[in-house]
Amino acid sequence: MIPATMKALFKPSAAPGMEMREAPVPTLGPTDILIAVETASVCGTDLHIFHWDDWAKNRIHPPYIPGHEFCGTIAALGERVQGFDLGDFVSAEMHVACGHCLQCRSGQAHVCQFVKILGVDADGAFADFVRIPASNVWKLSPSIPRDFGSLFDPFGNAVHTVLSGPIAGQTAAVMGCGPIGLFAIAVAKACGASTVFAIEPNPQRRALAQTMGADILVDPTHDDVEATIRSATGNNGVDVLLEMSGYGPAIAQGFRILRMGGRASLLGIPSRPVELDLANAIIFKGAEVHGINGRKMYETWFQAEALLRGGKIDLTPVITHRLPLARFDEAMHLLESGAASKILLKVSGTEGAQP
Amino acid sequence: MIPATMKALFKPSAAPGMEMREAPVPTLGPTDILIAVETASVCGTDLHIFHWDDWAKNRIHPPYIPGHEFCGTIAALGERVQGFDLGDFVSAEMHVACGHCLQCRSGQAHVCQFVKILGVDADGAFADFVRIPASNVWKLSPSIPRDFGSLFDPFGNAVHTVLSGPIAGQTAAVMGCGPIGLFAIAVAKACGASTVFAIEPNPQRRALAQTMGADILVDPTHDDVEATIRSATGNNGVDVLLEMSGYGPAIAQGFRILRMGGRASLLGIPSRPVELDLANAIIFKGAEVHGINGRKMYETWFQAEALLRGGKIDLTPVITHRLPLARFDEAMHLLESGAASKILLKVSGTEGAQP
Amino acid sequence: MIPATMKALFKPSAAPGMEMREAPVPTLGPTDILIAVETASVCGTDLHIFHWDDWAKNRIHPPYIPGHEFCGTIAALGERVQGFDLGDFVSAEMHVACGHCLQCRSGQAHVCQFVKILGVDADGAFADFVRIPASNVWKLSPSIPRDFGSLFDPFGNAVHTVLSGPIAGQTAAVMGCGPIGLFAIAVAKACGASTVFAIEPNPQRRALAQTMGADILVDPTHDDVEATIRSATGNNGVDVLLEMSGYGPAIAQGFRILRMGGRASLLGIPSRPVELDLANAIIFKGAEVHGINGRKMYETWFQAEALLRGGKIDLTPVITHRLPLARFDEAMHLLESGAASKILLKVSGTEGAQP
Amino acid sequence: MIPATMKALFKPSAAPGMEMREAPVPTLGPTDILIAVETASVCGTDLHIFHWDDWAKNRIHPPYIPGHEFCGTIAALGERVQGFDLGDFVSAEMHVACGHCLQCRSGQAHVCQFVKILGVDADGAFADFVRIPASNVWKLSPSIPRDFGSLFDPFGNAVHTVLSGPIAGQTAAVMGCGPIGLFAIAVAKACGASTVFAIEPNPQRRALAQTMGADILVDPTHDDVEATIRSATGNNGVDVLLEMSGYGPAIAQGFRILRMGGRASLLGIPSRPVELDLANAIIFKGAEVHGINGRKMYETWFQAEALLRGGKIDLTPVITHRLPLARFDEAMHLLESGAASKILLKVSGTEGAQP
Repeated sequence: MIPATMKALFKPSAAPGMEMREAPVPTLGPTDILIAVETASVCGTDLHIFHWDDWAKNRIHPPYIPGHEFCGTIAALGERVQGFDLGDFVSAEMHVACGHCLQCRSGQAHVCQFVKILGVDADGAFADFVRIPASNVWKLSPSIPRDFGSLFDPFGNAVHTVLSGPIAGQTAAVMGCGPIGLFAIAVAKACGASTVFAIEPNPQRRALAQTMGADILVDPTHDDVEATIRSATGNNGVDVLLEMSGYGPAIAQGFRILRMGGRASLLGIPSRPVELDLANAIIFKGAEVHGINGRKMYETWFQAEALLRGGKIDLTPVITHRLPLARFDEAMHLLESGAASKILLKVSGTEGAQP
Repeated sequence: MIPATMKALFKPSAAPGMEMREAPVPTLGPTDILIAVETASVCGTDLHIFHWDDWAKNRIHPPYIPGHEFCGTIAALGERVQGFDLGDFVSAEMHVACGHCLQCRSGQAHVCQFVKILGVDADGAFADFVRIPASNVWKLSPSIPRDFGSLFDPFGNAVHTVLSGPIAGQTAAVMGCGPIGLFAIAVAKACGASTVFAIEPNPQRRALAQTMGADILVDPTHDDVEATIRSATGNNGVDVLLEMSGYGPAIAQGFRILRMGGRASLLGIPSRPVELDLANAIIFKGAEVHGINGRKMYETWFQAEALLRGGKIDLTPVITHRLPLARFDEAMHLLESGAASKILLKVSGTEGAQP
Repeated sequence: MIPATMKALFKPSAAPGMEMREAPVPTLGPTDILIAVETASVCGTDLHIFHWDDWAKNRIHPPYIPGHEFCGTIAALGERVQGFDLGDFVSAEMHVACGHCLQCRSGQAHVCQFVKILGVDADGAFADFVRIPASNVWKLSPSIPRDFGSLFDPFGNAVHTVLSGPIAGQTAAVMGCGPIGLFAIAVAKACGASTVFAIEPNPQRRALAQTMGADILVDPTHDDVEATIRSATGNNGVDVLLEMSGYGPAIAQGFRILRMGGRASLLGIPSRPVELDLANAIIFKGAEVHGINGRKMYETWFQAEALLRGGKIDLTPVITHRLPLARFDEAMHLLESGAASKILLKVSGTEGAQP
Repeated sequence: MIPATMKALFKPSAAPGMEMREAPVPTLGPTDILIAVETASVCGTDLHIFHWDDWAKNRIHPPYIPGHEFCGTIAALGERVQGFDLGDFVSAEMHVACGHCLQCRSGQAHVCQFVKILGVDADGAFADFVRIPASNVWKLSPSIPRDFGSLFDPFGNAVHTVLSGPIAGQTAAVMGCGPIGLFAIAVAKACGASTVFAIEPNPQRRALAQTMGADILVDPTHDDVEATIRSATGNNGVDVLLEMSGYGPAIAQGFRILRMGGRASLLGIPSRPVELDLANAIIFKGAEVHGINGRKMYETWFQAEALLRGGKIDLTPVITHRLPLARFDEAMHLLESGAASKILLKVSGTEGAQP
């Protein structure tokens, strides 16, 4: 039943662009699982790979198959795999940790020293089939809308960021409202944040921020961010900064709006060094700063599932587009134009694909 | 018995220098305590004030009496003070918190939004007498060597820094070995750190670092800091960075030697913005960064006392000089030359003053 | 404007009952505040005092005025009080901590060794006026329904219990659905709990539990509690036990439904020793158990206010009765019959009093 | 080189006693490691198994080989094992976690719901060879005295108990001074505990407690435990209770000497239910109670190694006897007489065996 070859979206060479190719279906080791991809979603990282920017040049080794956000059904099981069945609807943690380093052996596999990311460092999910170590496969609860299956990766980023410290009864500022920022707004509200500020220049994203539950929208191109937040927090500043922009000046501003003794969780990746007034931003402030990488394995997955299972959080508004995988070019352009938030690429099945 | 006037070391005007003057003994409010100063020690902050640098110009309002590290005996009690007696040997927390802000009301008085620091923002301890709110006075256990009394402030900085996260069984790098760095070495070892690296260019300070218990001395002007630490930590990097230098390039290097998922506690104050490769220094690394301000009120004081009481830690090697208060000029020059570590200024009594 | 005498509900002597009396209005020390009580609510503790049970005999010293849940307006200010104005609408923390013990000096004033509870150890709020130290008075935000003002004390108990550990994305069992248990259900849901089980024999309370957001109602007199919870949690047991019953067999059962490595926060007070299978209940289970006393001063108050301010939580269903203070007898009987949940006693004003 | 059969100490049947037998050397699965046992030490659990008490009757399935504390050298490697070499000197975590349950997937493998303990639920280390999953094997640093190799299991229990909460600058009471209690004393002191109380009726154990660093010895058969500790802690009680006795009245007393807001870590296993005054022991006290099971996998192993590596802690005094494995009968009798603390059984090699 498993064909010998499959359609896959390749990064074919060290140059801009991607292309659909026919490729062999991956073979399985004894502890691997083969998954028939149903939906894969597009991450900003994929856009870097598509455009072949400096980061991509240093990290990516073409030819290979990108794609690290997906869901699908189990098509084959390695001989030593237990606890899964053919047909199970699953997603996967694409950070494949080494299992042997200090971090892996002490509850910090999400910062494994020797991690390989499927879809970045090895073949990923923009294909009919993807091979994943069984330890990394996550069964999706039938009570979660099927459409959210490919979003566990970025939704997990948001959950990890928001829940890296206390959030109940806290004020929080989300700096940058791409998909992860939007998810973070919803997670913060669902977990008891009192006032959530969404700071974002793009008006479509601000509108989505409001839909996802943000209490106060701030446009940094027109509003006085610091005055707005001081005023709305009794001049204290926010309890929690959730940094999703990766933009140096925004990060510096984020620390200025953080209250004395507050918590800053940083997920957005700056592309170059950032100049910070460390004395006031962190030291005198007694701030606690958390670098956020991936998702905790697998605490975050349990939390993400629990938050989605009861319908507590609806991710639908963030899914702005659905396209068949073959229309990846269009997806990349929508993403870079700022017109899209999260784009689902339909790989198998027909439901949900917009013609 | 309390005289009307006293000798005090003044910052007399908005210009370099300090001078001894006769001044009225402070009068007490109902909840204040008057302390006859026995010993006051000199902090790097006092040197900034002495030299009238940019920081001092922005913060200090002469004429006033500096000095914020001291010990002495209680000479008079405000009418509503309870729990203290005349003659009690005490030190004091010189950060006078407002008691009303969010931070003060939620266990974070050490980052009070409206703190006044005695010796910086108001009259301090370089005088025969100093007035302190009773809430900030700390009785010194007779089992602690009397000489350590004035050192609770900087020793508390070290305790707060080291104990802001786990230290038992951890490797730690102390970046910068002034008095607080030296204290931090001793605290880390006394609290179960496995290997403590002391990174310091000044050879006298490195020698003191060894005396205080550092396992491995690193001279950043000659040694390859990163290679040394990688090699001594199985290529992991250190579990804990204790940043005491306030020097931008050292801070950046500190993050490079921190292991994935490690903890960095920052106490040293950079005088200007610092450029950090945030992506690698903190975010991908999943680091936890703590800004350290003052001492926790009064958790740190209890910890500091407990660590000193049993003789577990000996601060004596850090006390390199003892001078009478009148020889403050000499103290300031010793400090800036790098020849001194901690200098005790004897105010009352004669014991310990070196002629 | 302040009269010389006032109406007050007294515990007059070491015997069952209470009675209304005329009493002098309290005089103020320099740091006290006099509050004109608007509403006082009745706690189970008041019922113990009313009935003069063994606990009451050992703790209470009549004659005195009980009542420790209240709100009202400031009628007079001690001469050294700052930050409050006449007419401010306030509630208060009735645990008056000593301010000097180890706990008070290290962020644990809620377990002060020398605490005095107003309304238990000294005069309380079942009166026209009550005197409170300014440090314990809490200004109520105008955005919180006025009716909730007297409920900060028990609502704070619930907040402290729920937030003594992680709750977002967790399953939780609330054992016992008196007012604090009902509040805890709402707090847990508002802070991201996935499934909340309400375990309670009284059908009216179970109905209120559902109104407050409980996902699954369990009647321990008819349902198999352990089987129900095992089945609904994939056989894991609950992540979090919130013990509000104080009933020995329920506490023991609570530990049996707690998952390996789970958290139990115990607030309900057993009236006698409890037999626990410590080996399985706590030790092998690797459980973390938190004793909950009062509310954190004042972290819990900030959290409680934040959760109520935005209308995130509605306490109205728990308020089953409103009576004038003079009808305290009726209130006590309603409470002990199990027909009432929280009863508000109206002291001043007429609004809300049901004839 | 691997023989077909080996000598092994068996629990042969459901009756008291053990006996030496010849048995097949275990065969390896692809991810297993075969270890030639050099030393195995005797745990109280082995004594329960030897005597065939009620606990043993319910848990143990003879015939099988007990023994779960050991060290030895790698004799053979399963075909898929990486990172180990023949001849490596190792110990092992004998709790074999399932890897799939909620706990295993969220950093709590030490409380795996489906754990199998080698030496309890399956063949252990009282034999020439033992088979261990590679994931559970721990390479021993050459800088750690070879004699300590078999002690990582009980030493790890002590490390897990002491470090389950803050210990630096804290007072701690160790209740019960068997080997784990003795180790806990040393760990607490090495990690900055200020005053450690050892509470133990057996005078030989009290003497060992002093050798291991206890500051104050208390004999509960003659001393007034509560008065002694109140007096030595300024009437506060201890910050930390480390419960190692498993004896109901001692546990109850332990909570009485714990300060308000203190931490109790419970490791000793009571053989029957314990009656506790929960209201005063835990709830009003605001205590935090930790059930301690095994060792954290593998945070505790890293900590244990770090504490032993630098010679910071010397376990030698606790090793009271060394015997060849064949003299297990003598070992069991020594242990039950209270004359022995930790007994090393030499399996291979001759060094250290006392004739």
